[in-house]
Amino acid sequence: MKFLPEYSDIEQAHQNIQKYIHRTPVLTSSGINKIVGASLFFKCENFQKVGAFKFRGACNAVFSLTREEMKKGVATHSSGNHAAALALAAQMRGIPAYIVMPETSPQIKKKAVAGYGAQITFCKPTLQARETTLAEIVAKTGATEIHPYDNFNVIAGQGTAAKELIEDAGEFDVILAPVGGGGLLSGTAISAKHLVPSCKVIAAEPAGADDAFRSFRSGKLIPSENPKTIADGLLTSLGKRNFEIITSKVDDVVTVSEEKIVEAMRLIWERMKIIIEPSSAVPLAAILGKKVDVNEKKVGIILSGGNLDLGNLLF
Amino acid sequence: MKFLPEYSDIEQAHQNIQKYIHRTPVLTSSGINKIVGASLFFKCENFQKVGAFKFRGACNAVFSLTREEMKKGVATHSSGNHAAALALAAQMRGIPAYIVMPETSPQIKKKAVAGYGAQITFCKPTLQARETTLAEIVAKTGATEIHPYDNFNVIAGQGTAAKELIEDAGEFDVILAPVGGGGLLSGTAISAKHLVPSCKVIAAEPAGADDAFRSFRSGKLIPSENPKTIADGLLTSLGKRNFEIITSKVDDVVTVSEEKIVEAMRLIWERMKIIIEPSSAVPLAAILGKKVDVNEKKVGIILSGGNLDLGNLLF
Repeated sequence: MKFLPEYSDIEQAHQNIQKYIHRTPVLTSSGINKIVGASLFFKCENFQKVGAFKFRGACNAVFSLTREEMKKGVATHSSGNHAAALALAAQMRGIPAYIVMPETSPQIKKKAVAGYGAQITFCKPTLQARETTLAEIVAKTGATEIHPYDNFNVIAGQGTAAKELIEDAGEFDVILAPVGGGGLLSGTAISAKHLVPSCKVIAAEPAGADDAFRSFRSGKLIPSENPKTIADGLLTSLGKRNFEIITSKVDDVVTVSEEKIVEAMRLIWERMKIIIEPSSAVPLAAILGKKVDVNEKKVGIILSGGNLDLGNLLF
Repeated sequence: MKFLPEYSDIEQAHQNIQKYIHRTPVLTSSGINKIVGASLFFKCENFQKVGAFKFRGACNAVFSLTREEMKKGVATHSSGNHAAALALAAQMRGIPAYIVMPETSPQIKKKAVAGYGAQITFCKPTLQARETTLAEIVAKTGATEIHPYDNFNVIAGQGTAAKELIEDAGEFDVILAPVGGGGLLSGTAISAKHLVPSCKVIAAEPAGADDAFRSFRSGKLIPSENPKTIADGLLTSLGKRNFEIITSKVDDVVTVSEEKIVEAMRLIWERMKIIIEPSSAVPLAAILGKKVDVNEKKVGIILSGGNLDLGNLLF
């Protein structure tokens, strides 16, 4: 098997998952366009099943298993959205899902995973604890590990979001995606550069979790150390496959402040009347912070998800 | 001129305003359907221009003015959404708008009205203060008063939301709308009963502002006294035209508790990832509170708007 997916793998993934995913809408806001002086098209993966783009990759991974692999199920560690995504995909295919979650995951994400019938094991919120716990489970069950982002089929699945965005809204000058582990970004870059070679692909990352920024600039994969950001979906470190794809296909990685993330999130909530999680706001934050030149350009933005604990927000 | 609009007036209104309004989407949620045991279709007027259905009626009123009337502009009193709607419609037609707003209106609504170039006069938050202030302005300017709901053209405009809902999603067993002044409800009832005579039309009202409930049950128009509810768009008392239409065309008016309104609002935010204001949640609150029998039925719900102050909510 190849190490890195190509556009044909994204096409194959789209065929695998088409009947299980939502083809999410692409929305625009004349109010926000006026503020930023550009024409923005938002691909609304907050409306995707489980509330995040992660369902695309997880679904493709589960529906790519052999009959033999299916029997033993799938396993992963995830801070939340990938866990829910894998659990639902496994439930749809009728196979077991073993999920390792950091005990600090938002309540809403824990509930969702349990609701899809997965077997959850909680661990300390460190990459090492997650990996050790997962290794034990895989050894015991023989389940296939589905890494949240450093996985061929997952990357191919995530690339279907940008494919749909371009199919539905036409060619772009720039496409922006947030970057955490790099699954969405690497899939986006493969689709965008294949379909619109002149399109710039730019990653936006919280300054408090800037391993992709540092890795991209230095040319060496540098893991995060104690990342801190409100964008809890972007705390993870870049994967190997993701880093390779990003190095060859992404035009730039820019960082944004926490203040701009909150400002961007609020702007989308207020003007577009849709709920996005903080990670989704990072690309618009980069535009508001003038980290990306979008002047009079046609810009695609992938809104990665809409899951957050509303417990403290509503009254 | 006729006192009460009929369905042909709603068709005319739709032609008048079609190119100025958004044809808002109709969304469904399999999660919420499972919880309530029915098939719900949400007409998303939170995505309408100015963030509320009110733009339909205001737009129809403004685009129904004679040349002579246009010169002197339009005037109204409104707790918020109608004010913004009338201001924007007037701006689109290039005529003056004079708006009387209670000084207690949410900040976001005051900002919106000012942003559309209207001339605002603030007053005490009582119906009497609103009417007196408005009468002075109309006497001074000669502007045409556009009442927020007790107005022929406004009712006809509001009826276009249910018309689109039925055109886009087919026939319904039940259609639910919130009721405040009754503009949306009366327009909805005219459209629904004309297009689907067997469809029940049911109004949902906060128990803390139950003048429509009491008026409907007693057969006499009883104004609100000191209404109190989180659903700030529903504090107003039923209008005369609205009461007449509701009496003849609405099947029932039910009341809901504040707790159920918050529960319904939260359910829509969490499951559908869209932002609605509390008034919009009142029909689903009626379903959750078992005030309406929807078991296995196909139900249309008009989500009236999405404007609320996020200042205290976000971080």
